[in-house]
Amino acid sequence: MRGAEALIGSLTGAGVDVCFMNPGTSEMHFVQALDDVPEMRGVLTLFEGVATGAADGWARISGRPAAVLLHLGPGLGNGLANLHNARRAGTPLLCVVGAHATDHVRHDAPLQSDITAVAGTVSGWVHTSGHVRDVADDAMRAVAATGERGGQIATLVLPADVSWTEGGAPAPPRTAPAPEPPAPSRVAAAAAAVRAGEATILLGGPALSAAGTDAAARIAAATGARLLVETFPGCWETGAGRPRIDKLGYFAEQAIGQLSGSRTLVLAGARSPVSFFGYPGVPGDLVPDGCDVVGLADPGSDAVAALEALAAEVAGPAVAEVAPHAAPEPAAGPLDVRSLCTAVAATLPERAIVVDESVTAAAALAPALQTAAPHTQLALTGGAIGDGLPVATGAAVAAPDRPVVAVQADGSALYTLQALWTQARERLDVTTVLINNSAYSILRVELARTGAGEAAHSGRAGRMLDLSDPTPDFTSLATGLGVPARRVTTTEDLLDALRWAGAEPGPHLIEAVVPPLG
Amino acid sequence: MRGAEALIGSLTGAGVDVCFMNPGTSEMHFVQALDDVPEMRGVLTLFEGVATGAADGWARISGRPAAVLLHLGPGLGNGLANLHNARRAGTPLLCVVGAHATDHVRHDAPLQSDITAVAGTVSGWVHTSGHVRDVADDAMRAVAATGERGGQIATLVLPADVSWTEGGAPAPPRTAPAPEPPAPSRVAAAAAAVRAGEATILLGGPALSAAGTDAAARIAAATGARLLVETFPGCWETGAGRPRIDKLGYFAEQAIGQLSGSRTLVLAGARSPVSFFGYPGVPGDLVPDGCDVVGLADPGSDAVAALEALAAEVAGPAVAEVAPHAAPEPAAGPLDVRSLCTAVAATLPERAIVVDESVTAAAALAPALQTAAPHTQLALTGGAIGDGLPVATGAAVAAPDRPVVAVQADGSALYTLQALWTQARERLDVTTVLINNSAYSILRVELARTGAGEAAHSGRAGRMLDLSDPTPDFTSLATGLGVPARRVTTTEDLLDALRWAGAEPGPHLIEAVVPPLG
Repeated sequence: MRGAEALIGSLTGAGVDVCFMNPGTSEMHFVQALDDVPEMRGVLTLFEGVATGAADGWARISGRPAAVLLHLGPGLGNGLANLHNARRAGTPLLCVVGAHATDHVRHDAPLQSDITAVAGTVSGWVHTSGHVRDVADDAMRAVAATGERGGQIATLVLPADVSWTEGGAPAPPRTAPAPEPPAPSRVAAAAAAVRAGEATILLGGPALSAAGTDAAARIAAATGARLLVETFPGCWETGAGRPRIDKLGYFAEQAIGQLSGSRTLVLAGARSPVSFFGYPGVPGDLVPDGCDVVGLADPGSDAVAALEALAAEVAGPAVAEVAPHAAPEPAAGPLDVRSLCTAVAATLPERAIVVDESVTAAAALAPALQTAAPHTQLALTGGAIGDGLPVATGAAVAAPDRPVVAVQADGSALYTLQALWTQARERLDVTTVLINNSAYSILRVELARTGAGEAAHSGRAGRMLDLSDPTPDFTSLATGLGVPARRVTTTEDLLDALRWAGAEPGPHLIEAVVPPLG
Repeated sequence: MRGAEALIGSLTGAGVDVCFMNPGTSEMHFVQALDDVPEMRGVLTLFEGVATGAADGWARISGRPAAVLLHLGPGLGNGLANLHNARRAGTPLLCVVGAHATDHVRHDAPLQSDITAVAGTVSGWVHTSGHVRDVADDAMRAVAATGERGGQIATLVLPADVSWTEGGAPAPPRTAPAPEPPAPSRVAAAAAAVRAGEATILLGGPALSAAGTDAAARIAAATGARLLVETFPGCWETGAGRPRIDKLGYFAEQAIGQLSGSRTLVLAGARSPVSFFGYPGVPGDLVPDGCDVVGLADPGSDAVAALEALAAEVAGPAVAEVAPHAAPEPAAGPLDVRSLCTAVAATLPERAIVVDESVTAAAALAPALQTAAPHTQLALTGGAIGDGLPVATGAAVAAPDRPVVAVQADGSALYTLQALWTQARERLDVTTVLINNSAYSILRVELARTGAGEAAHSGRAGRMLDLSDPTPDFTSLATGLGVPARRVTTTEDLLDALRWAGAEPGPHLIEAVVPPLG
């Protein structure tokens, strides 16, 4: 058995049975082995950033390690931004990077570059497979590594000759180890903190599951602790029937306001909050002066078990308050960001997966979704824009029985628009609501906030933040990639289009034209 | 003066007066400073890979260091593949990567990552600017570094606070130093080699200028030396009226055939030839057994002066043979790759810049162009596909008075299609001939060549190399990005479309539908 087949057979035995890929010559034996290992599903993407973002979305929804196949250093580079987002999400992700045959490396051929140096910036584990007899074990070590530290990227560099050489054998099937139980001392410290009053519990990572948020809400009901969800949740069960919890604001001054008055901040699966960017004269550390920080569960530990242990200790029979289902349709009229978000919430199907790369629209989307149908929300975790469409793609592969709604900003969509093609090829049930405001609106806001200036709408500087001249036509772009699309400018047409997209199988894009901000 | 303004003012004083960019929050002061330094032209791209590829094309045509502005580690990642190509082209390129404010780094905010580790894989020089008083000098050191070793990437990491702080001042204007003269001992060794007979001169890098190829052709005429051009020339003056020189073949067996019988291989600006990929049982080093290699000029040295010195020594009054202008129109009928290339050659304007990312069509394009109107040819130097449209964009910015023709494979175009939008915004005279064969055809070839298998057109493996289901509609895609487009399926319609594109100002795309290979 060739190395490639042994590798793939080992992966499927460990529950890694989808591989998002954009292969090249050095990966041809891996590709060919797909014919020999039918348990592995190969999903082709037109660009590596789609593959890595889709793998991130797949793992966030499936709860299993995702796999990608990339072509040498440049392929890894193209996938790097969404690997960065996956790293910040704590996603277990196996990154297989094909490389030159071992004997070819010394020639410094045109595609040669330092793969491990680049991989090391996003990976918790990096290894170059050296021999066909080792490749199956290397793969198993890589899969195991993806589960460490609460989920991380493991990069296996796969020389072409290791793939093509006979003599491999699949590793035995592997089941993931159970997570560590919560530390009683941490639970006790958190219990003391919430009992003392004026505590805020910041939820993140695995704490955002239904069980985690339910436990947190019972704690809040019993103790008066405030709850907040990290600003960019990787995978959050929310909406009607779930505890109603605000997200920590994106802008530092919002977050500072939300956290003020907290005597203790209890971290449950979340990191201690910091400002997204540094601004002149604004603190980077968002923890209020004099507020103690208590780590109940690190992002890497079993935050749900920790919250349940804490609830058992402090909440007793308390019942969590949950959000009502209240998502009225917006009034007829020209679209703006608020009515757009209201329309998305009003039509959201039960058990949908909502992928939020709405950027400046997020402030309007979040409250609208709080009382929409129960759903799973996936956000842009690492700030590297161009994640939304790929994540939606991977989420839809992981959950073919669930509708996916991607609320997507225009500028960000243009990074990885190729995801639409994979949605079309795989007949994925994804509805993309593309918010076209013809600008990098967030940068117009940020230009003023950083003190750089105000002239963001005109002039030579303003032109760098402007997406008109020409305004991209997303209806034409989606159609060109095989996804049926419609352009809407009113709330009634958006509602019609959302129902059209929901009624037909396969992907759809709705280009919602809204006025620029400000 | 703020650091950003001092930086930009210093760059323009050193001849770096265009910056291709995709900025974010940490770059807002750089953007704002464009209003204060009108000598700097900012060119917005929708994706960082477009910015880096465009900078590469700009520098190859202008002969001056190019500049890009990227947003933190993920922005650098998105630009990495085309930086790889620029590195292999020996392009002088200043890569400015905005970063978090110095004091914000310790917070490990979501967008924090190891920028210098990634930059180091493509850069000959990396530095993080530490203080506003240093930023102008840092910029000058970076520009100087871009000219070392024959042209390389210099990465300057620019913390947001260094940009926004007052107290900077532009560095004095700088002129590039003169290159080192050729070493007499190398010229003497090359002279002995070509006089001994059965020598092949492999031309690359700067040797591919008009002066370099003219000198080489006179040497060949006088001594009988064979000439070859490196497989992927960065910037080659060729076509009618120039010496007719074949390129070294892409596939190892082609190259081995071309080099066989050479007693000496003289390298003039080219690296010693190696196989692009390793294949089972095929040598990676393409120099024939027993053939001596003589380095006349490294890629980093003044190869033109070296060739002229060699010509002065061995060629005397010899006159170079040049290619005739013979580019007949193809016969009417359905398009195939050969007739497509013939049509491009027949209609090629004088002094055009041809950007070749034709991949499998390159074998037909190269002979057709040898006798087309004189032109400059830019190829994919590093093998990281997705370079063609960005390079064409940058070349057109550098030479607004020259038509640019991009001959572009479909799969590769889909990596960085966003380049079309920048062509539309900047009203660039680029005609893209998009070869739509609905497949990664090169991988179908490579799958067989690597011995992986033959079933490349069907099955689960074959589906990973197939771009149908759905076939991207490039006419719709180009229109969506603001570039007028037409689809053609016959030679007569392609000729019509080429004339239409040539007659109107601004960018155009012609989607030429050809049958799949094989």
